[in-house]
Amino acid sequence: MERKKYDFGLVGLGVMGRNFILNVADNGFSAYGHDLDEEKVASLLEEGGDTDKINASTSAPIFIEALSRPRKLMLLVPAGKAVDAVIESLLPYLDKNDIIIDGGNSFYQDTDHRESYLKSKGIHFFGAGVSGGAKGARRGPSIMPGGSKEAYQEVKPIFEAVAADFKGEACVAYLGPKSAGNYVKMVHNGIEYGLMQLISEIYDLLKKVGNYSNPELHDLFDTWNKGRLQSFLVEITADILKQKDDKTDGYLVDMILDKAKQKGTGKWTSQNAMDLGIPIPTIDIAVSMRELSAFKQERIKAKTLYPKKKIDQIEKGELGKWAEEALYFGYILTYAQGFHLLTEASKEYGYDLNMQTVAKIWRAGCIIRAGLLENIAKAFNETNAPTHLLLNDAFASKINDTVPTVRNLVSLAIKNAVPLAGLGNALTYFDGYTADRLPLNLIQAQRDYFGSHTYERTDTEGIFHTDWEV
Amino acid sequence: MERKKYDFGLVGLGVMGRNFILNVADNGFSAYGHDLDEEKVASLLEEGGDTDKINASTSAPIFIEALSRPRKLMLLVPAGKAVDAVIESLLPYLDKNDIIIDGGNSFYQDTDHRESYLKSKGIHFFGAGVSGGAKGARRGPSIMPGGSKEAYQEVKPIFEAVAADFKGEACVAYLGPKSAGNYVKMVHNGIEYGLMQLISEIYDLLKKVGNYSNPELHDLFDTWNKGRLQSFLVEITADILKQKDDKTDGYLVDMILDKAKQKGTGKWTSQNAMDLGIPIPTIDIAVSMRELSAFKQERIKAKTLYPKKKIDQIEKGELGKWAEEALYFGYILTYAQGFHLLTEASKEYGYDLNMQTVAKIWRAGCIIRAGLLENIAKAFNETNAPTHLLLNDAFASKINDTVPTVRNLVSLAIKNAVPLAGLGNALTYFDGYTADRLPLNLIQAQRDYFGSHTYERTDTEGIFHTDWEV
Repeated sequence: MERKKYDFGLVGLGVMGRNFILNVADNGFSAYGHDLDEEKVASLLEEGGDTDKINASTSAPIFIEALSRPRKLMLLVPAGKAVDAVIESLLPYLDKNDIIIDGGNSFYQDTDHRESYLKSKGIHFFGAGVSGGAKGARRGPSIMPGGSKEAYQEVKPIFEAVAADFKGEACVAYLGPKSAGNYVKMVHNGIEYGLMQLISEIYDLLKKVGNYSNPELHDLFDTWNKGRLQSFLVEITADILKQKDDKTDGYLVDMILDKAKQKGTGKWTSQNAMDLGIPIPTIDIAVSMRELSAFKQERIKAKTLYPKKKIDQIEKGELGKWAEEALYFGYILTYAQGFHLLTEASKEYGYDLNMQTVAKIWRAGCIIRAGLLENIAKAFNETNAPTHLLLNDAFASKINDTVPTVRNLVSLAIKNAVPLAGLGNALTYFDGYTADRLPLNLIQAQRDYFGSHTYERTDTEGIFHTDWEV
Repeated sequence: MERKKYDFGLVGLGVMGRNFILNVADNGFSAYGHDLDEEKVASLLEEGGDTDKINASTSAPIFIEALSRPRKLMLLVPAGKAVDAVIESLLPYLDKNDIIIDGGNSFYQDTDHRESYLKSKGIHFFGAGVSGGAKGARRGPSIMPGGSKEAYQEVKPIFEAVAADFKGEACVAYLGPKSAGNYVKMVHNGIEYGLMQLISEIYDLLKKVGNYSNPELHDLFDTWNKGRLQSFLVEITADILKQKDDKTDGYLVDMILDKAKQKGTGKWTSQNAMDLGIPIPTIDIAVSMRELSAFKQERIKAKTLYPKKKIDQIEKGELGKWAEEALYFGYILTYAQGFHLLTEASKEYGYDLNMQTVAKIWRAGCIIRAGLLENIAKAFNETNAPTHLLLNDAFASKINDTVPTVRNLVSLAIKNAVPLAGLGNALTYFDGYTADRLPLNLIQAQRDYFGSHTYERTDTEGIFHTDWEV
């Protein structure tokens, strides 16, 4: 009698892969894992228990043979060459119409190339960004699939079962053709960089100017998480701020080195936005601040050359209120920039993204999940869906309420030498986007002066050049 | 009797090429031009006069045959495919050891590929960025050559003769191997973006908050150009501000549409800096503001949703003084970011750049020429040349003097909704670079919390991970 075949395959049994496969099994599908590392395979078998539900092997042919057709197998391996290596190792055993899903943070152009390559071999390939970290993979991530809609239908029941649930709606949806899934995940991560930067600088200001202690900061973030700032990143910040250090008497956060690493998705978002001509300065500067943080020795030396003094003070409770308003403003502006990029990228790359769908599948499971996304989904649901969140009346009202406080807070930080990089750029972006007249006329004049690059006029159509030096 | 051969060849007789060849001939070298466009060839022949000094042809073989060996021919054609097309069209007629110089704004990686390709055919190829616009090409540009040092020696006498002169020193020097020349020119343009943005926003603030008229602005920039802000971009801004409009009774600058275009070099600088992990936020946001300016219709609509009111006022003369200090600060910080990028790129790509040399050849001829470059050259000339301009004592003193005013000015702009994008990011960068402790410890904690990305500690070596959720 032939052995029972498994519903779903998963390659790469690191923390994410192992948790994802356990999640699949929990939701009534049988799953088979594959990793070249014997220990990882053994460890999954041990945790999985019943091998009718979860099985695993270090052998590619055994793995492939164990899957029901069309085979549905997902890769959770590091982005880059590892993905191609895994694909090549499996290809000899696959049959026409089998489906490979790349669940990693692959660069969207790589996904497009791989889709074309595998199509020529009769294999379906699509990218599906997965967000939620280790815990999300285990208990319900947000999943962002793109690619062939037909192939997605085969995997849909499994993805809908394992994805995070937001009030009865699964946080997964088919997003669009080609690399739409990886692209949306990339922008998700860009927004994540922006929000993390905003939180870190607000924390910095509260600490340095407001003299907030860690327990006070914990309380503040904890309270914020019950209001309009409710979000995963605010929630974990509250958790982090109460964590005691094992090695000292203090708090762990104070003992962590202030050099932030990155894995590239924020950088890709910024670089790609520049290729598309879409400004996302809050995300750009979040990338820059991580880079700047690496120059720790230079910063220590520079501090001695540039003495600073506190100038303005403000009552602690008042500063806390300002901070909440400013962070709310920063959150909105960061999502607004991210959704603007998605809107324009969707046109450029033919993704045909539905912004409401994107907002909805981000409401639970993923790192940037936030109460605000419900409002964003609503804004994009209107008959006249805005081309930009700032052009939505409901958001205009929310933003207008906070702007005076944001101006006060950023000014206060500037006087106290606390770099509110993300918030400052959010405000600059806001003031630029809402200005009917920017001084870029002077830049066009300069370009025409030294390079004969021509200019347009405000009062008439056409392209003009002036001989400025006469 | 054989015809006399020409010293120098130039392909692409647009404004830049035509001016460059006339410059070569003015300086005692005979030059031969080539362009497929008959009108351009005819026009050069007419202007050139004596065909012993300047000649030109639409024929590639006639052009190549006319040059003395090893042939030295420079391309001034648009970056991208045109460069490859021209190279292929000339290649059949070239001999071993001939030298092709790409004088355009080619992407540095393209230059590396072309150098390898042509080396395999025995042809020397190097990139030499040329800055100074049409007038610079005619009267003396700044030239930034890289590539084969041996090949450069052949062209050196011609380049030194045609380049701009700064107190007896030619604004050209061999910079380093491979694409060093194109790379330095790219960063030159990135700095140019930053400076132009700074000037435009200071102009905006003076106009909107200080109620400066165009003649008053002209006087201010004209005065600044006689002081420590002396620079080509300040000089032409003064010129631009006095230019009357032919079609109306007003000033031309007011009639120019506030949508700024770009040709990509600023964007490349930002994108490449991100690849290298070097923060250059003033340049990044200069790119973003040009992008943002393109959304003119959205900006007009947004203005109606976000009413603004002026809050703070300040006496006009006082604001003018602040503006000068702030622009000086912004200039320093923009050059500092650009030179930091060059320093790190030089290590990464093996260019072995001498920062003093770069500063020196930028002192005249190019778009970013400025009195300040003399100070920069001096800073990099010291025995302990700084790894970053901010770590130089002389600059620290200059900067410290301006910082309080910069804080006041940026705060004033923020309260008045005038986006000082470049200056704001210069200040953020300054406050970040001079902070021994940044709040990126919190970001590392967040990354470890949701993704087990680990962190380092301040008190001991090693890589740590915490199970935050217990």
